Order: sequence, then structure tokens, then C-alpha cells
Amino acid sequence: MTPKTPLFEKLALIGIGLIGSSIAHACLRGNLASKIAIATRSPETLGEAERLNLGSSYHLKTEEAVKDADLVIICVPVGAYETIAKTIAPHLKEEAIVSDVGSVKNAVIRQMKPHLPENIHFIPGHPIAGTEYSGPSSGFASLFDDRWTILTPLKDSNEKAVQKLTQFWEGLGSKVDIMDANHHDLVLAITSHLPHLIAYNIVGTADDLEGVTQSEVIKYSASGFRDFTRIAASDPTMWRDIFLHNKDAVLEVLGRFSEDLAYLQRAIRWEEGDKLFELFSRTRSIRRSILEAGQDIDAPDFGRTKQKDD
Amino acid sequence: MTPKTPLFEKLALIGIGLIGSSIAHACLRGNLASKIAIATRSPETLGEAERLNLGSSYHLKTEEAVKDADLVIICVPVGAYETIAKTIAPHLKEEAIVSDVGSVKNAVIRQMKPHLPENIHFIPGHPIAGTEYSGPSSGFASLFDDRWTILTPLKDSNEKAVQKLTQFWEGLGSKVDIMDANHHDLVLAITSHLPHLIAYNIVGTADDLEGVTQSEVIKYSASGFRDFTRIAASDPTMWRDIFLHNKDAVLEVLGRFSEDLAYLQRAIRWEEGDKLFELFSRTRSIRRSILEAGQDIDAPDFGRTKQKDD
Repeated sequence: MTPKTPLFEKLALIGIGLIGSSIAHACLRGNLASKIAIATRSPETLGEAERLNLGSSYHLKTEEAVKDADLVIICVPVGAYETIAKTIAPHLKEEAIVSDVGSVKNAVIRQMKPHLPENIHFIPGHPIAGTEYSGPSSGFASLFDDRWTILTPLKDSNEKAVQKLTQFWEGLGSKVDIMDANHHDLVLAITSHLPHLIAYNIVGTADDLEGVTQSEVIKYSASGFRDFTRIAASDPTMWRDIFLHNKDAVLEVLGRFSEDLAYLQRAIRWEEGDKLFELFSRTRSIRRSILEAGQDIDAPDFGRTKQKDD
Repeated sequence: MTPKTPLFEKLALIGIGLIGSSIAHACLRGNLASKIAIATRSPETLGEAERLNLGSSYHLKTEEAVKDADLVIICVPVGAYETIAKTIAPHLKEEAIVSDVGSVKNAVIRQMKPHLPENIHFIPGHPIAGTEYSGPSSGFASLFDDRWTILTPLKDSNEKAVQKLTQFWEGLGSKVDIMDANHHDLVLAITSHLPHLIAYNIVGTADDLEGVTQSEVIKYSASGFRDFTRIAASDPTMWRDIFLHNKDAVLEVLGRFSEDLAYLQRAIRWEEGDKLFELFSRTRSIRRSILEAGQDIDAPDFGRTKQKDD
């Protein structure tokens, strides 16, 4: 896990929120880069990163941070990628690997590829990990441990560069999968984007419902609702950008979701209990598979209910 | 918290799943009843309760358990209430309090009230607490601590009996609210029943989606999806009965939810980022209110992501 010689001489992180700062922590833990340059356009955020001692140099200008970097990782909301690509392109080192952590991949390629020079290695990536918190102080070294990172190399991506980026993510604690950008965007639409949209939506519906006060929604939230409020507390800018940049796949899975929901609605209206029971039994077994795959803890209620017993 | 003289001479629990067994544990912890009679129609479940030493007597026949009981609490899926009411009615002690823990209240009153004698106190109840596990061994004494229990007395309910039942639930660790059954059913439709329906539904949609394998859904579930699988692993019989018995309120809030979702769908299609951003910011503040009210823990990711830092 801890190589004697770091994999990279210089890592540049563009953006230092939850994911950027967690990469910095895990990179230090694994000794994966000799230097870490950190760039963000917000002086406050940069100051916070510096106080946390996350890097070896701190920059308000991205073009300064990427200078001489062997690995550049973009860790900002996906709406900002095109501007960044244009800005850094003339300053990239030859043979540098340029990657990112964005939750959509087709739109990232569309935005960046036309602006990047031919002599670098552009390999988009996406670590499937996170919490509902944001900002430099929300990051931690173990965020990627036992989670998956998906790389979506282009057809002409250099095999050695892909291998090196894979090693880097493994060094951060992650397992790595390779797939194409289209498939990534569909998989994430169902496993991540739709769940977030549904969570945001139900929290909004509850907030707007006449006849039930906000204080009642809050008091009785332990009956199920509170689970949704966690992911509905995720960063609004990041998530707005995700929905705008994975429109087709999100609309596709959302159509399926609504169709299935209409089926349940009809089953309730006509009191077809067997249809409900069949689905509710099937979903239980999917939960079991997730626990068996080590992708969630099996403690009741995510372990948050204290079980001091009698 | 621990009275010298127990509040009740004899408590009868009809049904001994997660909630029934948690009442037994918390009742023992608080010394709230001298005797606890446990009834369930399943010999296996009854044997499990006995091995766990949850009561002082064990019965396959509910009518035996309720004999001489001062407090009877029904803790079975709400579809079975009418049969139970008919069975126990002739055997209830005069002045006994008859209550329950069902997640719907109007249907419970409709099913039970016509069969119960005039000389007992029927006071429906509902503790807003639970986990996704079921069965006698899933219960624990602290389940109700700092959670709310809602009582929905009828217009003619005896005030002293309501007070005594309130004391009982406070003795179990709960806070107690009083409201009418109609209001309860609407509040729970939005805070509990709709969240469960949505969770069951999205897990089903993901399972059915061609183009994405079940193994992919499981591997990448940490990106949001896994949160929904927890409540979608709840007891299928219990939840089938809830939807069938709170039909009107569930269809009402489901209509609102679908309307709101169509608005988001349109905003995505027409790339109206400001509408998305407005909602995503508002939902964040509701999460904060839930944390401030002590109804969830503020550890990132429900505390399930280990944060061993570098």
C-alpha cells in the first residue's frame, strides 16, 4: 500500500471540497505523490485547505497549480469543467495524466476533450464514495477504502497511463473498475442520480404539504423520512450540475421509476395486496446482497440507534 | 423512571416482533408491570420469546394472555386486528386499557371498536420508532428512548386511562403526543408510509432495469441507492397491511409527490438549473432542523463510514 517511491512527482488537485480533500488525505497516507498542488478560485476555501495542511502549494490560479504536474485531478462541480479545460490546456506538462472525479462522464468528455492537447493522457474517473458534507474540512483519508472507483478511458487512451491511474486509486484504498462513459452514466443514473432526485423531491413534498406542519415532519421523521434527508442535504451546486449533465440517462430511469410507482399506486387503490407483498419481499433480498458485498453495515438502522440493552 | 410499584399489575402483549419485544425489554428495564403475558400464534416465535425470557407467561391463545390483564397492547400487522378484537373481547378484564402500536389509526379503530365491550378503555397508540429488522430477537430496551409515541384517544376516552397509558410510554423512554386518528394517518403517510413506498419502488426499478446488472447496482450502491435498501428491507406483511389500511392518505401524498416529481422532471428536460438549485438548497435546511431536534445523528453518512484519519 505504501510505495517507497511515490507514484507521481506532482499531483495537482483542482477543487478541494469533500472529494479533493479526501484525495489529499489518502494520498499523504499512501505516500503517492511527492508534491500536492491545490487550486481553488475561493480564497476562503484555499485558506482552509492551507490551515488543514492538505498540500505543498496553494493556488488561486489553476494554470499555476498544473504546471509540471504529472497527475491533474479535477474535483469541482461538473458545470465548471469546460472553463477549467480551456484554462489549463496550454500549461499542462507533456505526458501528464488529466483525470477528474465527476459523477457524470459523457458530459465531462464533451466539455474537456476538444480543449486538451494531444500530448497528454485524458482519463476520466469517478470514485463511488462520499458523504452529505462538503468543503475541505469534510474530507478524510479512509473515504475510498473498500469503495469502487470507475475509470472511463477513451478509445485511444494510453494503456500504461490507465494502469498508473489505476494504481493511484488502489493506493488511495479503492477498488477500480473500467467501463465506457455511456454505461457509467446509466449505472450511476439508477444507483445515485435517481436516488438523490427522489430524496430531494420527497423532502420538498413534505415541506409543502398543507395540513402537516414542518415541526411535525421533523418530530416524527424517525419513522422513515429522516433517511431521505441525509442525501437531500448534499451540495446543491454539485447536484444541479449532475442532473443538467446527465439529462438523458436520468430522464430514462425516472420514466421507469414513475411507471413502476403508478403500478404500486394502482395496487393500493384496488387493494391488490399480493402485488405489494411480492415487491416488498423481492427488495428485501437485494438489501441482503448489498450487505453480503460489504457495501453497507448490517447494524440495524445503520447503527445509529444506540442499543444499550437491559 | 423506575417506579417502586409497577404501573400495571399485568401487561399482555399480543404479538412479539420488533416492537412487542422492545416493549417487553423496556418494560422490564423500567419495572412498569409485575407480570408480562406474551401471546403469538406461531409456536416458533413463542419459543424464541421464551428463550429470550421476555415475559412471565407464554400463550398461543390470545384469549388466555389477556385474562386479568390491566393493559393489553396489540403488536401485530394491522391486517389481523379485527380477528384479534373479536377473540379477546369476551375475555377482557373490566377497566382494562386496550391499546396497540399500529402504524395506521383510523383503520385500527374501524376494525376494533365495534367488537370491544363498553367497560374497557380503548386508546390506540403508535410509537414512532423501529429498525428494518423483525422478530423477537430484534427488540431492545432503548428503542423508544427520545422517540415520540402518538396516542389517538377516541372522543369518549377516559382521561385517567389516557394519562396512565402516557405514563407507561414515558416509562418506556418515549415522549408522548396526543392527536386525532385522521391527523395521525396524514402525518404518518408523509413521514413514514410514502418514504417506504418510494424506497420499495426504487429498489424494484433498479432490479428490473435492463442494461444495468444487479451486481452493478450492488457494487455501486454506496453512491446513494443503499440508503433506500434499508427501509425497503422492512417486514413485507406489516407494510402491505399499512398501505391497504391507510389508502386514502397514502394516495393523497403520493399524488403530491408525483406532481412535484413531474415538475423536477420538466426542469431537467428544459435545463432550468435555478429551479433545481432552489429546491436542493431548501431541503438542506430541513436536514439541519432534524439534527437540531435530535431526531438523527449528525455524523457524516449516518456514522457508518469509518473515519480513521491519517
